[in-house]
Amino acid sequence: MGRWEPNAEQRFLVAAIELFKEVGFEGTTVAAIAQRAGLTARTFFRYFTDKREVLFKGSEQLQQTMVDALAQAPADASAIDAVAAALATAGEFFTAERRPYARVRHAVIAANPELHERELIKLATLSVALADALRLRGVQEPDASLVAEAGIAVFRVAFGQWIADAEERAYGEIVNEALVRLRTLASL
Amino acid sequence: MGRWEPNAEQRFLVAAIELFKEVGFEGTTVAAIAQRAGLTARTFFRYFTDKREVLFKGSEQLQQTMVDALAQAPADASAIDAVAAALATAGEFFTAERRPYARVRHAVIAANPELHERELIKLATLSVALADALRLRGVQEPDASLVAEAGIAVFRVAFGQWIADAEERAYGEIVNEALVRLRTLASL
Repeated sequence: MGRWEPNAEQRFLVAAIELFKEVGFEGTTVAAIAQRAGLTARTFFRYFTDKREVLFKGSEQLQQTMVDALAQAPADASAIDAVAAALATAGEFFTAERRPYARVRHAVIAANPELHERELIKLATLSVALADALRLRGVQEPDASLVAEAGIAVFRVAFGQWIADAEERAYGEIVNEALVRLRTLASL
Repeated sequence: MGRWEPNAEQRFLVAAIELFKEVGFEGTTVAAIAQRAGLTARTFFRYFTDKREVLFKGSEQLQQTMVDALAQAPADASAIDAVAAALATAGEFFTAERRPYARVRHAVIAANPELHERELIKLATLSVALADALRLRGVQEPDASLVAEAGIAVFRVAFGQWIADAEERAYGEIVNEALVRLRTLASL
């Protein structure tokens, strides 16, 4: 097996998610993932620490992309509009072709308390990162934390809608609508 | 040692939190907690599953109290006002005399990833319970989840302020201010 396989990471991701769907997360071994991907377990460990890592790969990138979008929002944008820019840019990750993957991933995480906890930690970390970025824009506390947490609230709900079975609207449309809706509800 | 000790639960709570502060969570044994409380380990296990349970005792009660307050808000109250009632009633638990305990508890949880995860799970569960209670009032989705999550956002920030070192204002005042502030920020 050659040292550099083309698209190895993507092949592992697809193989893993297929197996998680077919035999469950617990029943899936790294050896089986590698076999399905037509690669070796040794190559797998060049990309991932373990099979859990497959589910959380990309979350640092997502966070950095959102933080960058928040930082680059126009200087006169309100705190909530800066967070809106961060929420919108996450659409780069939540494309139509990734939706089936996201649905399986969500089902796996929902069924496994340890993975669910890790997902909650990732969201809490994202909230802190958005609040930090807001403070760098000059937003004071508690405003920065309140708006960052509210942004995460919108993000969680919109993401849940996006991966729902019958849902066909794009993430960008859903998250924008959810934010507008929360702003309306907050004024009632 | 008699079977029914007066205020045993409260004595264990005080003893445990003192020890967590003095020697850390990891270094504290149930035997030491019982000794400090002047009770036996056997009695401890009539009240708590383990030493972690000491930190989370009362969270079901808190949740039920908040859900009840939400359910009992006036029929014509908006979703956000019903959540405001739930947030306000949590003040029954966050009294001035419990603040030193809450501060030590927070420091213990912040320093221990496993406890931090459990705390995040409790908050996620609370959010789901508030959304359920909103739907029982006739609030549709995604409104119910959005307002519940926003309420949790306010709760987290306000609780963090309440236990901050220099903070002297009551929880009720802080949480009310945080909610008003979020409503203002959402309109900007």
